[in-house]
Amino acid sequence: MIGIAVVGYGYWGPNLVRNFAEVPGARLVTVCDLDRDKLKTVQARYPGVSITDDLDEVLRNPAIDAIAIATPVSSHFRIAMSALMAGKHVFVEKPIAASAEEAERLVDEAAKRRLVLAVDHTFVHTGAVRKMRELVTGGLGEIYYYDSVRVNLGLFQHDISVIWDLAVHDLSIMDFVLPSRPVAVSATGMSHVPGEPENIAYLNLLFDNNMIAHIHVNWLAPVKVRRTLIGGSRKMIVYDDLEPSEKIKVYDKGITLGDSATAKGDKVYQALVGYRTGDMWAPHLDVAEALGLELREFVKCIEHNETPIADGQAGLRVVRILEAASLSLSQRGRLVELEQMRRVA
Amino acid sequence: MIGIAVVGYGYWGPNLVRNFAEVPGARLVTVCDLDRDKLKTVQARYPGVSITDDLDEVLRNPAIDAIAIATPVSSHFRIAMSALMAGKHVFVEKPIAASAEEAERLVDEAAKRRLVLAVDHTFVHTGAVRKMRELVTGGLGEIYYYDSVRVNLGLFQHDISVIWDLAVHDLSIMDFVLPSRPVAVSATGMSHVPGEPENIAYLNLLFDNNMIAHIHVNWLAPVKVRRTLIGGSRKMIVYDDLEPSEKIKVYDKGITLGDSATAKGDKVYQALVGYRTGDMWAPHLDVAEALGLELREFVKCIEHNETPIADGQAGLRVVRILEAASLSLSQRGRLVELEQMRRVA
Amino acid sequence: MIGIAVVGYGYWGPNLVRNFAEVPGARLVTVCDLDRDKLKTVQARYPGVSITDDLDEVLRNPAIDAIAIATPVSSHFRIAMSALMAGKHVFVEKPIAASAEEAERLVDEAAKRRLVLAVDHTFVHTGAVRKMRELVTGGLGEIYYYDSVRVNLGLFQHDISVIWDLAVHDLSIMDFVLPSRPVAVSATGMSHVPGEPENIAYLNLLFDNNMIAHIHVNWLAPVKVRRTLIGGSRKMIVYDDLEPSEKIKVYDKGITLGDSATAKGDKVYQALVGYRTGDMWAPHLDVAEALGLELREFVKCIEHNETPIADGQAGLRVVRILEAASLSLSQRGRLVELEQMRRVA
Amino acid sequence: MIGIAVVGYGYWGPNLVRNFAEVPGARLVTVCDLDRDKLKTVQARYPGVSITDDLDEVLRNPAIDAIAIATPVSSHFRIAMSALMAGKHVFVEKPIAASAEEAERLVDEAAKRRLVLAVDHTFVHTGAVRKMRELVTGGLGEIYYYDSVRVNLGLFQHDISVIWDLAVHDLSIMDFVLPSRPVAVSATGMSHVPGEPENIAYLNLLFDNNMIAHIHVNWLAPVKVRRTLIGGSRKMIVYDDLEPSEKIKVYDKGITLGDSATAKGDKVYQALVGYRTGDMWAPHLDVAEALGLELREFVKCIEHNETPIADGQAGLRVVRILEAASLSLSQRGRLVELEQMRRVA
Repeated sequence: MIGIAVVGYGYWGPNLVRNFAEVPGARLVTVCDLDRDKLKTVQARYPGVSITDDLDEVLRNPAIDAIAIATPVSSHFRIAMSALMAGKHVFVEKPIAASAEEAERLVDEAAKRRLVLAVDHTFVHTGAVRKMRELVTGGLGEIYYYDSVRVNLGLFQHDISVIWDLAVHDLSIMDFVLPSRPVAVSATGMSHVPGEPENIAYLNLLFDNNMIAHIHVNWLAPVKVRRTLIGGSRKMIVYDDLEPSEKIKVYDKGITLGDSATAKGDKVYQALVGYRTGDMWAPHLDVAEALGLELREFVKCIEHNETPIADGQAGLRVVRILEAASLSLSQRGRLVELEQMRRVA
Repeated sequence: MIGIAVVGYGYWGPNLVRNFAEVPGARLVTVCDLDRDKLKTVQARYPGVSITDDLDEVLRNPAIDAIAIATPVSSHFRIAMSALMAGKHVFVEKPIAASAEEAERLVDEAAKRRLVLAVDHTFVHTGAVRKMRELVTGGLGEIYYYDSVRVNLGLFQHDISVIWDLAVHDLSIMDFVLPSRPVAVSATGMSHVPGEPENIAYLNLLFDNNMIAHIHVNWLAPVKVRRTLIGGSRKMIVYDDLEPSEKIKVYDKGITLGDSATAKGDKVYQALVGYRTGDMWAPHLDVAEALGLELREFVKCIEHNETPIADGQAGLRVVRILEAASLSLSQRGRLVELEQMRRVA
Repeated sequence: MIGIAVVGYGYWGPNLVRNFAEVPGARLVTVCDLDRDKLKTVQARYPGVSITDDLDEVLRNPAIDAIAIATPVSSHFRIAMSALMAGKHVFVEKPIAASAEEAERLVDEAAKRRLVLAVDHTFVHTGAVRKMRELVTGGLGEIYYYDSVRVNLGLFQHDISVIWDLAVHDLSIMDFVLPSRPVAVSATGMSHVPGEPENIAYLNLLFDNNMIAHIHVNWLAPVKVRRTLIGGSRKMIVYDDLEPSEKIKVYDKGITLGDSATAKGDKVYQALVGYRTGDMWAPHLDVAEALGLELREFVKCIEHNETPIADGQAGLRVVRILEAASLSLSQRGRLVELEQMRRVA
Repeated sequence: MIGIAVVGYGYWGPNLVRNFAEVPGARLVTVCDLDRDKLKTVQARYPGVSITDDLDEVLRNPAIDAIAIATPVSSHFRIAMSALMAGKHVFVEKPIAASAEEAERLVDEAAKRRLVLAVDHTFVHTGAVRKMRELVTGGLGEIYYYDSVRVNLGLFQHDISVIWDLAVHDLSIMDFVLPSRPVAVSATGMSHVPGEPENIAYLNLLFDNNMIAHIHVNWLAPVKVRRTLIGGSRKMIVYDDLEPSEKIKVYDKGITLGDSATAKGDKVYQALVGYRTGDMWAPHLDVAEALGLELREFVKCIEHNETPIADGQAGLRVVRILEAASLSLSQRGRLVELEQMRRVA
């Protein structure tokens, strides 16, 4: 049995606790939080789980093999690094750390100690996103663009901008789904609450190839939207996460290009770009709870010494983009090369 | 009676002809096109209208007071300028010209000759957009953002990019609806057909105040979307042009800010940003055909020596942004100041 | 060339005229209406078509081979019968006549004279309905139910109830799509305008087999709905005619039945009825205008002495149900056997 | 403190337990179920609550003032009657009993003993339904019709038909919302699983006045629909329970009737029925959990000797209609007078 401690019992911690309780091979040993009231709730609901407000106690406990961290982003690095140094496997909320440098140090430490380092990119474990990956590899053809809108009213964060809060989801999905990685990013946005981080932002991601990506995130929208378009040369996807069942729709649509050698003047050109419209298809999706699958995978990786889908490297790649986007955001959307960021870091 | 000639009987010209035929005070005298087959169609449908493929004939005809131009963008300037110099009032398809310089010269010429110069920003005559303007002025509070998505499959143009084809609509709506004007623009995009203009693009518009605007246009989307969000400090709008009747929805939603003087630490802050959720309201809209209203306004302006809502200046402002956006597009999204553009022009 | 006369130039007549003008093999000779103003409109738009307010003149004209009737329902029989007796082929607006007796007499007369008698069941020529027929035959399994909702605000008729105005569409679609025919019908409804026919009605259709059908029609609904559900033992269809492109959605959903021999008590039963959920699929549909296809078929049937899809018999079957439903409506929903109706008629 | 026992810990019981745990003034004393495994789950989650599989023990317990019953319908009467005779207040799942006779006896017993008898018509405590009642009374004008569709795939019941499972919701909402009560009912439906109750059914409800109601329920639909239309002479409502936030939309739409004295012939009539189209409005709704409000009301009624909104009489009225509908269903939709049912019962 893999002994687990959950550190942080605020917004997301209870979900980790509830799910770990049902993961075969795992035993939830301890929940740690600074807030004694929250710990009392744990005790009432899970009488068999011990509670503490002392992280060191957790780190010293030999019955604990792995630590799941659901604290504010600014503390991810410190807690995760302590855990790794204490020989514990680590599962961290997204984003994995507050900077690329921190993320790199965690990756290095985990590698050095041969410990599992996983980041909670929950969406990559959903049936919808797994299906998208399958489709991107399998039938969409050349990928032309990735466009995502993730907007709603609230919850305003005061320590991180809307990019670190919402765009992180899209970046982790893209990291999993797309065959290539961005080389440069620009971001524009604005804060409408004086002194607070940006609550609306637009990210552009450039690639080495013929692809472009864009993310719109907003905490101040009148309606909730969770919609991604992926355009391929053969098919196109609409992924609407708010649809109760048909979250993924695959459109057999696109353009066809004629032989330009025969094209002369206006009219001939018009014939060159033709439009294809075929069937639409909404594949049946696995509806198992993503977090449950993710925690099972984490425990299995510990047991068999394997690498999780969303490992420290994935967490690092996402944080690199977030960091570059933040830099761009502060410079009115200046394009920031990601390679350059890596060297600086 | 104001004598009218329509020049260009391709995609949009027939709409102009059909609508002019019903404008009180106007008489459609001539239709001019280079394509004799198209002219025959005119003759069959409108036996009382003369046809010609000779623009000079139109310009010399004293029975013609005004010329409506529905030819490709590259020819707008030449035809409009000839018409103004021949003393004719002018109504031009959007965008008014292929460059800010051209647009400025048209504006100057019309002013000098005291002729009406109107640009076909059709949307500003729709019930939905007029209602938005009313709401922006009347109840939304401070405007925070303007976000528009205008995507579908086709029609690829080969002489202008998707910005000049689709974003021109959003820019003309914004020019009419918003209380302030952008000061800088950046645009990123891509062409997926070798040698052709961009078919997907994202525009960021910066303002001097607390507002941000963004436009997503795409000729290669699997679904058709025409949706604009406007966020205000008091209310927010969703404008969905594909809705058959409730095109405008007004949400009494937003955030409330507490007294920051009393805020200390994490918890207190959370209390500071509150969320308001009230009724949603879809005002009844005037469903009269926009183009009909627009042409009536044009004729009325000629009769009474008035300035149309979408005059040459409006056309010029929109082309300035399009030009700046094109420059930005060619430089990987570099921010282009609009004031600077004006000086350069 | 088949010479055509259109009789009735009110709401639907102009559509017939416009479409006949483009049917190969047909020549629109005359338009007949009692209203001289309407005839003037015809003359202006179609200078080559003669006009008249005298039906006898049309019937006597040897250049006219076929007559398309778009007059009020009450006059269908009289005009169609005169036309048949004058040796003309006939195309009548739906419903084919105001009673089953009238419809039968038309069918008999056309048969006797070997003339084509077609009824304008336009929907059966749409890509959506043709696809439904294909699916019902090809993959839905045993058909369990057919449920249709056709509601909106207006247009109130004063000579016929909402059943004869709207349900006639559903009945004609069902007649075309379903493998079996109803044996009994009941209908309830109400008029909310004193002295006028019912503006809301519900029809139940019973069959000899395991199928049930239901139609809800309403002229006084706040929203427009055009939605049909067809449940089969293997697949199910949602047909939403207001969807711009995906009008037909096929759901690979249903129940599975276990072996009842092993079922004992409550729990075992629960296992017996299982639920299947597979992919959803929206087939690409032919978007050609249904009326155009229908008129081409009519002309082709005249040329080759064939029977149209929606022939007099189809028109008669639909009118029989309408008549039975009207009887039921007047008797608080009493079930009316259709066989019995036939005998009475 | 009011001592509470929950009897039945199957599908709905856990919701009662969870909600009673948070009702001020109530103390959850015991959970009773025949299934020992289910009781163990209770013990694990609520260590302070006693468990038993012996109903008599519950009835004898003086610490228990009220019993909430969430067992199969067939057992409602027996358990509720025992509870009332033991002097306990009673809260029963819908439908209150398996027949009108049973329901009447419960109502009489509760009245005789001055005990609170409540039925779990949960929907009448939702913000949406309460708002509908307010609107029906306040601004819709004369009510013309009530039309509800409640369809989805599953869950097939084997002891009761889809009417008793799903239509019961609509009937309880109508009982609460509408100003008048039905006088007759007819129902048609069908079972598609041999030997099992009807899985699809249509109910017609007739009233003494100008109103009609209709309910469509179906366990075998490819999509989930929960939509009610209410037509009034001044306004109309669409209530879509699947909408995440705007569940109630109020349409300022309808018809206007002209002065019939001046009406002559066809054209004048057309002018008589006019169509009004004004704003649409989605009022903000209270989002408090309905079950929580309902249980608070139940406890408050016990404390202050008051009558709950959904009392035994409401439960009885609904069961009377269900019983009449079942009778009609078994007789191919024969209209059943409700008054007559009452006498028979």
